Amino acid sequence: MMENIIQDVESNVSWLSQFGSVPSGGITRLLYSKEWFDAQQALKQKFEDMGLETSFDEVGNLSGKLIGSQHKDQVIMSGSHIDSVVNGGNLDGHFGIIAAYLAVQYLKQQYGTPLRTIEVISLAEEEGSRFPYVFWGSKNLLGLAKKEEVLNIKDAAGTPFVDAMRGLGFDFKQDDSAARKDIKAFVELHIEQGSVLETEGNTIGVVTSIVGQRRYNITLKGEANHAGTTPMSYRKDAVYGFSRICTESIAKANAAGDPLVLTFGKVIPKPNTVNVVPGEVMFTMDCRHTDQAYLKSFTEEIEKDMQAIAHEMGMEIVIDRWMDEAPVPMDTDLVNTLKDICEKEQLNYRLMHSGAGHDSQIFAPRIPTAMLFIPSIKGISHNPAEKTKTEDLVEGVKALTQALYQLAYQN
Amino acid sequence: MMENIIQDVESNVSWLSQFGSVPSGGITRLLYSKEWFDAQQALKQKFEDMGLETSFDEVGNLSGKLIGSQHKDQVIMSGSHIDSVVNGGNLDGHFGIIAAYLAVQYLKQQYGTPLRTIEVISLAEEEGSRFPYVFWGSKNLLGLAKKEEVLNIKDAAGTPFVDAMRGLGFDFKQDDSAARKDIKAFVELHIEQGSVLETEGNTIGVVTSIVGQRRYNITLKGEANHAGTTPMSYRKDAVYGFSRICTESIAKANAAGDPLVLTFGKVIPKPNTVNVVPGEVMFTMDCRHTDQAYLKSFTEEIEKDMQAIAHEMGMEIVIDRWMDEAPVPMDTDLVNTLKDICEKEQLNYRLMHSGAGHDSQIFAPRIPTAMLFIPSIKGISHNPAEKTKTEDLVEGVKALTQALYQLAYQN
Repeated sequence: MMENIIQDVESNVSWLSQFGSVPSGGITRLLYSKEWFDAQQALKQKFEDMGLETSFDEVGNLSGKLIGSQHKDQVIMSGSHIDSVVNGGNLDGHFGIIAAYLAVQYLKQQYGTPLRTIEVISLAEEEGSRFPYVFWGSKNLLGLAKKEEVLNIKDAAGTPFVDAMRGLGFDFKQDDSAARKDIKAFVELHIEQGSVLETEGNTIGVVTSIVGQRRYNITLKGEANHAGTTPMSYRKDAVYGFSRICTESIAKANAAGDPLVLTFGKVIPKPNTVNVVPGEVMFTMDCRHTDQAYLKSFTEEIEKDMQAIAHEMGMEIVIDRWMDEAPVPMDTDLVNTLKDICEKEQLNYRLMHSGAGHDSQIFAPRIPTAMLFIPSIKGISHNPAEKTKTEDLVEGVKALTQALYQLAYQN
Repeated sequence: MMENIIQDVESNVSWLSQFGSVPSGGITRLLYSKEWFDAQQALKQKFEDMGLETSFDEVGNLSGKLIGSQHKDQVIMSGSHIDSVVNGGNLDGHFGIIAAYLAVQYLKQQYGTPLRTIEVISLAEEEGSRFPYVFWGSKNLLGLAKKEEVLNIKDAAGTPFVDAMRGLGFDFKQDDSAARKDIKAFVELHIEQGSVLETEGNTIGVVTSIVGQRRYNITLKGEANHAGTTPMSYRKDAVYGFSRICTESIAKANAAGDPLVLTFGKVIPKPNTVNVVPGEVMFTMDCRHTDQAYLKSFTEEIEKDMQAIAHEMGMEIVIDRWMDEAPVPMDTDLVNTLKDICEKEQLNYRLMHSGAGHDSQIFAPRIPTAMLFIPSIKGISHNPAEKTKTEDLVEGVKALTQALYQLAYQN
């Protein structure tokens, strides 16, 4: 099996990466763009060549089914999203489709028709990179995408979402709350987009949960003053206020340890010039954890700390929590299945959480779902330099193949 | 005297503020602009109407002299700069010219011809707001402006400095190192541009020295990473590094107290986005003190602290000190003269340093120099809202008048 897969993995990654390839070496493949359409059409042909039964749903999710002999209406689904970020890498999303395709190809050759139907899914959209909407593909599959949410959104060039969709022959579902009822399990293989596997020396991550996230915009208002003529004791220096908040909060996050992460990613002082005491700072906070109660209590403590620091310094603070997403645990049985496979196949795996969002978080609350991670070199992603060693890609395909075998071929 | 001065102060401020007035209520009067030229020409006429002997030097500094009867070559000079920042206020710079003019007007009426020559000076430029060059006026007067320093500089519209100057009939001095030798004293009245006088309840500040300044551009290089997939222990978060540096340094500056001031005015993280651990931060540091040795030792300690924090966090730091200006003490005898006048006139004064730069710092190392400050409401300056109470403007003119009387009329 091994030699063939190495070749297949490499040739399929470069084949699919031609759709939307950019000079820097990565890809830009935005929802309902020509590159996106070409990629879906080419995949459809590829699926048919292998003998899968293909179909697009209304919005453009592509399916390739190997119909089961005994339980054709019990679908074991695997795949990921076909869209990319602007100037993204050659693995994020679409390698999960390639991996599912290669797994099914091997299983069909080796074992013929499965008991249950295996469906390779190429989801229309996950990144939210063209329009301000994420998970359009998986949300449509599960009846969660509402027509009115996208009715008035446009891309950066001013093209309405609806025009882009209809221009390629796709459209809204008749009933946007209709959900697929036939999916018995969803297994998504994805690159880690972090460096835990690489750092810890593992080749496979079995994901136990996807973190919850809280994101904030915070504005701290002090007083802008002349940097020379204003004595220290007169000042309400907003950058100093921010620095105290950041220093204390990150120290608390460091003390809390995994799986908590806390990031002050954006900092915009006003007026942002060398010789003026900053009168205002707008900054963001992003906090993630796998346990919802912990995430809530930790961020509430930080919010209180910030307010206390602002109060002590005589400054105003406005804390706007604009994202509050709950953690999503993966299906325990399915996680155990993947873990058992890794052990049986002697794969160098670890159990881990996902710090990033994935289509699986849309599936998991509704359908038994699990994820397999493969390492990202240096953790780099959303970048043309995104890379995974070929042998790690192969290990991922092997683990996924075994999982689909167990779920679709065994009683 | 009082009633006349109130009227004169108010009418002269509004008269001179018409040259370069902007809709927001302030002025924009950049070096060698039409507004600048009109203001200088109008002042020249005003000086002549009062019986002063006027002249422009080569570069456009305007003088109005009341010639002394006994020591005509011993010049007591007073004035300030005629240029403004973009969208500046109605006092910064030019009120020092108005004050000197009003003082001479009063002295001439009251006492006739002085023993020594009094020269009202309207300096061509101080702010550096049109071209990247400051103190063009005072530096030319003292033979410190070098031709080659401005030969290739341009304004934002691409106009060469030289073209702007020559377009109005001005030019370089034949010998750019030639300095005025006849100035025996320079007294500059200026708004404080800070809120010390207002806060402490004084109407006059007698300036003892102008602070030295050290300014830095600092780049702290960590590692940009995904805010979700990168555990805290893996991170090299440059914003956290900056925050630690800022927090510790400002705490030290607060402990050091007056006259030390320390400002981190500009902070630019990369990539500056909510869900990426910042990989780099460029920030500025501005430190000022009246004592050169203290300024040096304090900033060197902060530099070491920064390096230690960067080292501890595994980050690179590049510290670029691009400005290192020594403090400039005012002339002790002249400071005492001003102090004695304030006491004799029962003016509500205080001795203080200047945290901002002024033309006086160019004069002081070469010529006995002193400054008088008057309060700025809320410390606001470089802004159309720049304001001083009329009674404070008048107190300033009174103090300056007494000083010029003592220096020019007494033996």
